[in-house]
Amino acid sequence: METVKYLLSEDRLPQAWYNIQADLPQPAPPVLHPGTGQPIGPDDLAPLFPLALIQQEVTTERFVAIPDEVQRVYRQWRPSPLYRARRLELALDTPARIYYKYEGVSPAGSHKPNTAVPQAYYNKIEGTKRLVTETGAGQWGSSLAMACAFFGLECKIFMVRVSYDQKPYRRALMEVYGAQVTPSPSQETNAGRAILTGHPDSPGSLGIAISEAVEIAAGDPETKYSLGSVLNHVLLHQTVIGLEAIEQMQLADDEPDIIIGATGGGSNFAGLAFPYLGRKLRGEDDVRVVAVEPAACPSLTRGRYAYDFGDTGRLTPLVKMHTLGSGFIPPGIHAGGLRYHGMAPLVSHLLELGQIEAVAIQQLDTFAAGIQFARAEGIVPAPESNHAVAGAIREALRCKEEGVSRAILFNLSGHGHFDMQAYTDYIAGRLVNYDYPAEEIAMALAGLPAVS
Amino acid sequence: METVKYLLSEDRLPQAWYNIQADLPQPAPPVLHPGTGQPIGPDDLAPLFPLALIQQEVTTERFVAIPDEVQRVYRQWRPSPLYRARRLELALDTPARIYYKYEGVSPAGSHKPNTAVPQAYYNKIEGTKRLVTETGAGQWGSSLAMACAFFGLECKIFMVRVSYDQKPYRRALMEVYGAQVTPSPSQETNAGRAILTGHPDSPGSLGIAISEAVEIAAGDPETKYSLGSVLNHVLLHQTVIGLEAIEQMQLADDEPDIIIGATGGGSNFAGLAFPYLGRKLRGEDDVRVVAVEPAACPSLTRGRYAYDFGDTGRLTPLVKMHTLGSGFIPPGIHAGGLRYHGMAPLVSHLLELGQIEAVAIQQLDTFAAGIQFARAEGIVPAPESNHAVAGAIREALRCKEEGVSRAILFNLSGHGHFDMQAYTDYIAGRLVNYDYPAEEIAMALAGLPAVS
Repeated sequence: METVKYLLSEDRLPQAWYNIQADLPQPAPPVLHPGTGQPIGPDDLAPLFPLALIQQEVTTERFVAIPDEVQRVYRQWRPSPLYRARRLELALDTPARIYYKYEGVSPAGSHKPNTAVPQAYYNKIEGTKRLVTETGAGQWGSSLAMACAFFGLECKIFMVRVSYDQKPYRRALMEVYGAQVTPSPSQETNAGRAILTGHPDSPGSLGIAISEAVEIAAGDPETKYSLGSVLNHVLLHQTVIGLEAIEQMQLADDEPDIIIGATGGGSNFAGLAFPYLGRKLRGEDDVRVVAVEPAACPSLTRGRYAYDFGDTGRLTPLVKMHTLGSGFIPPGIHAGGLRYHGMAPLVSHLLELGQIEAVAIQQLDTFAAGIQFARAEGIVPAPESNHAVAGAIREALRCKEEGVSRAILFNLSGHGHFDMQAYTDYIAGRLVNYDYPAEEIAMALAGLPAVS
Repeated sequence: METVKYLLSEDRLPQAWYNIQADLPQPAPPVLHPGTGQPIGPDDLAPLFPLALIQQEVTTERFVAIPDEVQRVYRQWRPSPLYRARRLELALDTPARIYYKYEGVSPAGSHKPNTAVPQAYYNKIEGTKRLVTETGAGQWGSSLAMACAFFGLECKIFMVRVSYDQKPYRRALMEVYGAQVTPSPSQETNAGRAILTGHPDSPGSLGIAISEAVEIAAGDPETKYSLGSVLNHVLLHQTVIGLEAIEQMQLADDEPDIIIGATGGGSNFAGLAFPYLGRKLRGEDDVRVVAVEPAACPSLTRGRYAYDFGDTGRLTPLVKMHTLGSGFIPPGIHAGGLRYHGMAPLVSHLLELGQIEAVAIQQLDTFAAGIQFARAEGIVPAPESNHAVAGAIREALRCKEEGVSRAILFNLSGHGHFDMQAYTDYIAGRLVNYDYPAEEIAMALAGLPAVS
């Protein structure tokens, strides 16, 4: 029994990204200025982003052409392989057909370069000298650092202090690519200094690091800001995943009944799911789409659909999304890429429209699934990706119980070679689950801004 | 400027491995029994290896068919990509055309599964229940653990104590794949107990771990031994790399003038080089072939071509090879996979025949090369692979000096995502070079066994 690979030739690399905003029955609510409560315009975003990305944020064109220069970089590892997990099916003794799209083949080991490369490209051609961003565990920071090295941009990364100290390997990767990595909170920004004054030993948070990065970009005309998830243009760039998958499933002569992705900010999930959801919105498909989030950060399943800030410092515009409140600090689970209080507005909107489902899975279940997957398929998934693996295994076991064969397609967003401490801790029995008291979530939600 | 990928379709996966023993002008010297000094026969090896591998060790057939079951597993990541490093060429401002074959796409991240998979397969069909091996840094151990998981074999790995303690991530990878990992020296073998009696705090060595693994296999009819480099059948399995590369260079409409590989035990080097060397031995090609070894373990450039043991415990047969003496303990450089006192007999023989060249490069030069490569190409090489990168950059700069364009092809044997501590140490200025006094090497060589 073997793992079967479906590979597209390079000339089948998509020429355009798919924009789900073209197919929404009603548009997602507008992004609001935190001071005026009015919808923001391009001028509000111009200090932070190049014009091309601001346009992509709001366009309703169905397809956005991928620049030739970006396609040439993509082709180093794209089209990425799609596999049928025959050995996993055998191990589960399931009638399900399990497929996965594997994004760990990028040089940085995850899907993040799919957006890091075009973001660096558009900044380069619009004259940006330096990009600044934030990173938690480091998957996004390392991908942006690599893309900046390719296009000759400087790169500055605010890395959450606790990760900077505890995860020196991702930091080393960013430095290998030539980026400057600063622990956050830092003395370099007002936002950082304000925190350090009150809490000199602050471990930092993604929200604080965003505030620092945005402040630096806003204060220097040659520096722009870059974000690795949540925003519309980021999700747009990731749709290259799903567009390829649609062609590869045709090669496999099969069609997915269920599509599964892990959700933190929403970008890898959207990358696989949106091209399929577009067909569903147009009445061409009736696929079930399932977002799997960590029980320790359950924005889709236990959060509120409301306007909230993107950062804890409350410097960003207000976006309507499923949120646990920008003051919510999720526990230190190993799937660091999923530790975000909010969710991409487009993913949130689709949940409200009833187009997708959401499920939360506990940490221990995700690692058990990842190890079962690794023994069958050889690839050790990133802790974030283990959420998708666990979701797929659940659906495959349901097929077995019901005696039906369904095609399950999930996104394996990255490999876990940088995350072996997590597996070490799991094997040693040091990991735990998290069961939130409802009151704790209610308290965090009570701090939401008064906008509707 | 972009990195150009040359990908073979799956139906171009080689159907047979190439055996350089068919094309040698004179055979390599025989392996000798340490007790009798006479050539060993199949019966001497039968307790350790399945018959198919013993036959592959001595066959002079030019091609050995790759079993269908092995081809099906290979196809998960093979044919591996061959790239032209256009961005690196630009960074070096060289007229050279630089190509690299990338083996880091395997699930374990290196070339080692190319032999782990067939070794597990042949053992499985001959009824072996368990494989036992040794590992230093863990690249080999993790690959064999994965292959055993695929074929339903138990796997026991003696891991050098100092690596077991200092490199918990590779150990975690082996355990994720279901292997049992034991620090060596251990109380489980006579060889281990003998060491521990004299040195209770022994950090272990590859030589000691080999002794322990061999002892376990020899004492249990259901357990066989497995080795990740040096032996003829291991090098044979790796030739799938060079066979693919020959076809891919045709796709690129180019021919290598220089082939470069890093050498420790010799398997990744042989994998790329042997199919080209076969053409050279048959008079069809005049390619230069360069083996790059660490200055800290210079078996080819400063060792002696002599009969020696494969392990420090002196339990193995005697093989004629370039050796620093089985008592030689190389310093703790980060390219752990290259820390072996000897060299594959076939690689040694080809050096004696004048078919290949050898060069030693210092550790700091290899890391500088690896970082330059990562910024240009995105892929962070394993420290072992950095030796090949450094060798290729030297040749490319020589092209620049001489104003000539040559095609350079090297083997990028694995990614460095498990080795970021090495990069962290390099960036922090904590790595050093090693310059051996000639007397120290002479002293180690004085201990060679009296066989010629």
